[in-house]
Amino acid sequence: MENVRVVSYGIGVIGRRLAQHVLTKDGLEIVGAVDINPKIVGKDLGEILGGNKLGVLISDNIDMVISETKPDVVLHTTMSYVKQTYDQLVKIISHGVDIVSTCEELAYPYATEEVANYAKKMDSLAKEREVTLLGTGINPGFLMDTLPITLTGVCGEVDTIYVTRQMDAATRRIPFQKKIGAGLSIEEFKSKIDAHEITGHVGLEQSIKMIADALGWNLDEIRVEPVEPVVLDRDVASDAIKVPKGHNAGSKQKAFGIKDGETVITLDFRAYIGALEEYDGVIIEGVPPINQKISPCVHGDHGTIAIIANMIPHVINAEPGLKTMKDLPLPHATPQHMRMYLE
Amino acid sequence: MENVRVVSYGIGVIGRRLAQHVLTKDGLEIVGAVDINPKIVGKDLGEILGGNKLGVLISDNIDMVISETKPDVVLHTTMSYVKQTYDQLVKIISHGVDIVSTCEELAYPYATEEVANYAKKMDSLAKEREVTLLGTGINPGFLMDTLPITLTGVCGEVDTIYVTRQMDAATRRIPFQKKIGAGLSIEEFKSKIDAHEITGHVGLEQSIKMIADALGWNLDEIRVEPVEPVVLDRDVASDAIKVPKGHNAGSKQKAFGIKDGETVITLDFRAYIGALEEYDGVIIEGVPPINQKISPCVHGDHGTIAIIANMIPHVINAEPGLKTMKDLPLPHATPQHMRMYLE
Repeated sequence: MENVRVVSYGIGVIGRRLAQHVLTKDGLEIVGAVDINPKIVGKDLGEILGGNKLGVLISDNIDMVISETKPDVVLHTTMSYVKQTYDQLVKIISHGVDIVSTCEELAYPYATEEVANYAKKMDSLAKEREVTLLGTGINPGFLMDTLPITLTGVCGEVDTIYVTRQMDAATRRIPFQKKIGAGLSIEEFKSKIDAHEITGHVGLEQSIKMIADALGWNLDEIRVEPVEPVVLDRDVASDAIKVPKGHNAGSKQKAFGIKDGETVITLDFRAYIGALEEYDGVIIEGVPPINQKISPCVHGDHGTIAIIANMIPHVINAEPGLKTMKDLPLPHATPQHMRMYLE
Repeated sequence: MENVRVVSYGIGVIGRRLAQHVLTKDGLEIVGAVDINPKIVGKDLGEILGGNKLGVLISDNIDMVISETKPDVVLHTTMSYVKQTYDQLVKIISHGVDIVSTCEELAYPYATEEVANYAKKMDSLAKEREVTLLGTGINPGFLMDTLPITLTGVCGEVDTIYVTRQMDAATRRIPFQKKIGAGLSIEEFKSKIDAHEITGHVGLEQSIKMIADALGWNLDEIRVEPVEPVVLDRDVASDAIKVPKGHNAGSKQKAFGIKDGETVITLDFRAYIGALEEYDGVIIEGVPPINQKISPCVHGDHGTIAIIANMIPHVINAEPGLKTMKDLPLPHATPQHMRMYLE
């Protein structure tokens, strides 16, 4: 059976893990790799992944790679905002190649008018070039949007939706632990926030808008709170970082969807070293009420990598255009040869 | 905004609850009602529901009702097996009207060749008449298929899936408590099983097949165990039924999907008076592993009624044919005017 031909665009932390996953998956083949990092351009992807040569040299020229390799799909893992990825995505679309992207804002690019305008342009071009384009991931893309939306499917009435993701950062990769400011003093944390060196989770606004649009709720406002430090009353530590009592153990952030003056959607995101419980929770007040918990929480990197690969057949099978998770059939694992899932 | 016109076909326990739900939903209007029960034929649906007259007389003639009322959709709640409902469904399809049905076997009519043949005929006719036909409900239709399938979406590997539904029958309607044989002696339970007066849960085979097909697993066998009594070592009771220690408190049943000689899917269904915990659980052994629990379990009747109504727009919007939950976009609640969800 013929393999589905993949170009890996973005060979950073997630791009590498995704490429490793793709290499283990039956029916997927990496035919090209693209990144702008001069330290890895020109090198063999296999070596960068810490293994044997694959005969795939990392290029900094997406146009050339697509022209030469004629992939079925580009797996795109470069940046978080549509403004940053728009030119990259338009190039791929222009070549007529389907895309699955981790770009957080692309997971639901309708939260602000500016991004929605980019989305409309990409949707038009995608239809013209017969391309399907999807942004997804574990969050945004699944835990705080796809899953709660699906759970409301058995509700006759929905009053409020409260989604929590609480992670023990000690179990995650070190760059993630640093990204949330673990180990800093509260003053250091706050100055890094002010300097935009520590940023909030990208995707809360997108997940709220996706839920609201799925349910047909016309929100007054989506309010994303500033990211805040997490201060514990005990010393905690990961293998890499010590957090003395009173220092910052990680970060927490909430976002709210407000309708008719009431908070109807709450997303509550907490990642810190020393979290006693790790879980993903969805509480729906409605008829019937739903109280759901995934415990421990779904591993972010593993989950993102999995859903990106798993959505490949849905994206290839779908009608052209910019799609979101709520437009496509149920996500599902793809344990068999990838081509088996193609229509 | 114009209402979506509904015919209620089947005015039994679920049909009545569904009709009551439809009456409360913005943008749905019951324009016709059909049942064969001579005690209610000719009566006003509203009175049968215990309220005011609706001006909708219950008829025993689905052809006439559809011809006269020109509905957008028929909500079909008559019987559990496709063999029983095939003629009814074909009539509705022939009129060119979309259908959402609680027929358990229709939720995934591909578990046996005989039913798959009926399904193929209905699918062809539906495409010819430009009709969409869906079987759904809480189970089959959601808890033991749609939800576990969706959860595998974030798994890069799936080894096994174990789904449990454990219900305290005391919280359910009395006919349900009787249906599972609560209060009987073990001998009475067994003789009612032999006489087919107590039957197992319809849908386990269908849910297993839906999961397997979504994942692309080619099963050796689907094995549905006989329904068994639940005997507790203490007296328990509901408002309606007393269960002395040693008598039957309800029923339990397991079903297995077997691939390459290994059990890869297990459905574990337990409903009895005195269950200490009510929950719907999904455990996926894989990468990452998923351990999910909805606690208490989703109320069966409320959930079924909700999902039937919630799927109306997806069914109306979908391409023609016999669809299953895994073919359609994510289910979601429909709190707004129903027509808002139509494309």
